[in-house]
Amino acid sequence: MHLAHWNIIDRSIVYSDHQLDIKMKIEEKCINTIRCLAIDAVEKANSGHPGTPMALAPAAYALWMKHMRYNPSNPNWINRDRFVLSNGHASMLQYAILHLVGYKISLDDIKNFRQWGSNTPGHPEYRLTPGIETTTGPLGQGLMNAVGMAIAEAHLAAIFNTGTYNIIDHNTYVFCSDGDFMEGASNEAASIAGHFGLGKLIVLYDDNHITIEGNTSLTYSDEVSKRFEAYHWHVQNLGDKGNDIKAISEAFSNAEKVSDKPSLIILRTHIGYGSTNKQDTSEAHGSPLGVDEVKLTKENYGWPADKFFWVPDEVKSHMNQAIEKGKMLEEKWQKKFGDYKIKFPDLAKQLNASLHQDLPAGWDNKIPVYQPSDGPKATREISAGVINAVTLSLPWLMGGSADLEPSTKTLIKSSGYFEKGKYGNRNMDWGIREHVMCAASSGMSLHGGIRPYAATFFIFTDYARPAIRLACIMQLPVIYGITAKNIVDTANKMLSSRH
Amino acid sequence: MHLAHWNIIDRSIVYSDHQLDIKMKIEEKCINTIRCLAIDAVEKANSGHPGTPMALAPAAYALWMKHMRYNPSNPNWINRDRFVLSNGHASMLQYAILHLVGYKISLDDIKNFRQWGSNTPGHPEYRLTPGIETTTGPLGQGLMNAVGMAIAEAHLAAIFNTGTYNIIDHNTYVFCSDGDFMEGASNEAASIAGHFGLGKLIVLYDDNHITIEGNTSLTYSDEVSKRFEAYHWHVQNLGDKGNDIKAISEAFSNAEKVSDKPSLIILRTHIGYGSTNKQDTSEAHGSPLGVDEVKLTKENYGWPADKFFWVPDEVKSHMNQAIEKGKMLEEKWQKKFGDYKIKFPDLAKQLNASLHQDLPAGWDNKIPVYQPSDGPKATREISAGVINAVTLSLPWLMGGSADLEPSTKTLIKSSGYFEKGKYGNRNMDWGIREHVMCAASSGMSLHGGIRPYAATFFIFTDYARPAIRLACIMQLPVIYGITAKNIVDTANKMLSSRH
Repeated sequence: MHLAHWNIIDRSIVYSDHQLDIKMKIEEKCINTIRCLAIDAVEKANSGHPGTPMALAPAAYALWMKHMRYNPSNPNWINRDRFVLSNGHASMLQYAILHLVGYKISLDDIKNFRQWGSNTPGHPEYRLTPGIETTTGPLGQGLMNAVGMAIAEAHLAAIFNTGTYNIIDHNTYVFCSDGDFMEGASNEAASIAGHFGLGKLIVLYDDNHITIEGNTSLTYSDEVSKRFEAYHWHVQNLGDKGNDIKAISEAFSNAEKVSDKPSLIILRTHIGYGSTNKQDTSEAHGSPLGVDEVKLTKENYGWPADKFFWVPDEVKSHMNQAIEKGKMLEEKWQKKFGDYKIKFPDLAKQLNASLHQDLPAGWDNKIPVYQPSDGPKATREISAGVINAVTLSLPWLMGGSADLEPSTKTLIKSSGYFEKGKYGNRNMDWGIREHVMCAASSGMSLHGGIRPYAATFFIFTDYARPAIRLACIMQLPVIYGITAKNIVDTANKMLSSRH
Repeated sequence: MHLAHWNIIDRSIVYSDHQLDIKMKIEEKCINTIRCLAIDAVEKANSGHPGTPMALAPAAYALWMKHMRYNPSNPNWINRDRFVLSNGHASMLQYAILHLVGYKISLDDIKNFRQWGSNTPGHPEYRLTPGIETTTGPLGQGLMNAVGMAIAEAHLAAIFNTGTYNIIDHNTYVFCSDGDFMEGASNEAASIAGHFGLGKLIVLYDDNHITIEGNTSLTYSDEVSKRFEAYHWHVQNLGDKGNDIKAISEAFSNAEKVSDKPSLIILRTHIGYGSTNKQDTSEAHGSPLGVDEVKLTKENYGWPADKFFWVPDEVKSHMNQAIEKGKMLEEKWQKKFGDYKIKFPDLAKQLNASLHQDLPAGWDNKIPVYQPSDGPKATREISAGVINAVTLSLPWLMGGSADLEPSTKTLIKSSGYFEKGKYGNRNMDWGIREHVMCAASSGMSLHGGIRPYAATFFIFTDYARPAIRLACIMQLPVIYGITAKNIVDTANKMLSSRH
């Protein structure tokens, strides 16, 4: 198999490896390490998804080595860039990258991919693995979570940044697949992100033309650029440049410069890239390549076929630079935050309170008290009283409804609606989009600094069920306000219409 | 209030009414009757949604009086045009129209709107009310059902039409709202309808700028034309012509001529049209106008404010023409079908079998029989055997999965995939769109002539829960194939990884 056609990494500069004389530019060597870790891990587990890590390794390399700001030694640094793998089945891509840039994921962890009790399960799981920002797998969820993260960033930035001291100032990056974009969830996420103009949300769309049943042409032909432009996104279509880290990096740079619109980067890739018999087929999606095919593929990469889970020293030292770089990034931020504490002590105190969400003394002083003699009162009316009492002393509490506020009674009266240019406001109107309401509320919670609530009628929680399930699995403290207004109305009607 | 600005119905021809001297063109008189029936019914029930019926009455009049082919005396005529009110909260629009064109909905039924036990509930309910094709209310569902109806039409047409005898040849019309288009469901429905090129699906989008929490600009700014063009729809944007039945009718005519793409007609309307104080406000959405406002509104229409549930004789006789017209339409079709039975007896027999779905003798002869001695076998493998045995003798059984066929094992091996230009095929690949899979399968069942099945992994049914719930409420015989592959895999893995 001749890969030259679209393997357009510049090979003019050849690096050598002292263990093995692999003549390959360091970037390509890193990328092939990612690919082969994914291939080997899936092969050893005899289960998993090798094809997408093989295709997206260059994009992941470009993003993590040239763009993202993070500190592998402190995965919880509040101002880190977020990364969400919405196509969570490609988990080995993320585990390989996290391992190589120095997060606490060992090579043994990689070897235990998909094993019971390991920290490298089949799909990324929040709380289990350092560097995993959210649990993904069910398609569309990661993208919606990321919208919430970008909302949280915009909200906190509006409140805490002073111009000179931009304490909250980071991007949220997402990798998405055809599946994410076929799910209805992508409409809700993209529509509201575009409407809010979330400029720090940057999505790379892995356009690989392959689904489980075959070519996407069986069922899918959206003009994705046009669709996202209609949602007011900034769109770049890179075409068939899945291996061109320079082009990919430029696209990320362009996206980072756009501050008033979320960005979409469309990248045509080849699932199972480099596999002689399985590239561009659905066979590369969700099954191990098989011993013979692994050998052929590694040969195509110019990789030693008899090495497994191999990380060349040069790759390790090159990618481990992220550790020092990350420490410096956070130190620089900590220094800035130290100065900020001095110059803006009230804001700094409020930010810390928002991050830790300790309840201040007297936070519940103003909660209204009801007596039986007050007569009957709808629980949503009582809830409204409580929300408006506690939000006065808990500035990190915010949320809203899926266009039902007059019924759910969830408005914070002391604030306005979160809108483009009014990111400091605390009321969310999600529109008639229950699914993104719940999933993005999870993203806001995952981001930190916010305790979100989301409200709708009980029956409409059905629309958000996958997101609510994931919030439960992640043990997120999202507050759901469920109004059973229609049930009560119907019951009243039944009673009143009796003879 | 001066309505001349956009009440652009031509008043040059004035009709008179012998009961009351209302000088008004007959079309406008019919439209105001629809409006006032909706207003009065909501007022009497003290509950409901008057604003949208007031806004969409002209469009509904144009569609039902100038375009749709139906027979009020036989709501089940198989070749009728289908109408789906996806914004089901505007139910009074549909009840008023159905009453006026002669379906078995009496004026007393209208007066019993939203009363316990009536056939005019708050949202349209299938099986309860003649002429209601599907239960709507939860937004997005009707649109997805309609996609299934259009699929069913295309499939049956491909099998049974002979060119000279187009036995199945009808349109599926939908009214949609902002809410339908904000829901993720609209992405799944529009994407797959555009991909399949369902030319007989015609959707009117009621673009009224208002949601419950206020103006749609709070949360929604999609460029809808562009978005639907990106899904390969034929799009017409009529602008502010909600009262221009000529323009609306022309748009329907244009849409009917497009055979290879679904059509979207964007109509800017004014919710609560004609109400002095509530037009263009969310107050007109979901509450009665109130006695004083009803009076003002009727005066604005040039309507007697002291008349309630008033249907002028002239309106009744004009709109009742639909009864005779409908009888003639069906009679003509029955005659054609009579000739068809003679010329194509096998096809006619098969069509009847598909419509009645009686099981032919020996339909289950080829179902494989397993013995305990055969050893363990996955239920989905057994299911595959059954599907492929019974589909040989049951040509009306069709369906598929949301891109999981290799796991759900639901392929009918004797047929290909349903695709644009291959509508006779029986395998559906819905893409990674569980919600429209289930809701459109409901639509296929509602259409008649097909017994659909839909398959996915158990956990992904969460994505389709609102559609499955409605299918249950409607008692639709849709077959769900739920694969618990992942559960089994995980259990096996847990067992195998034990020491």
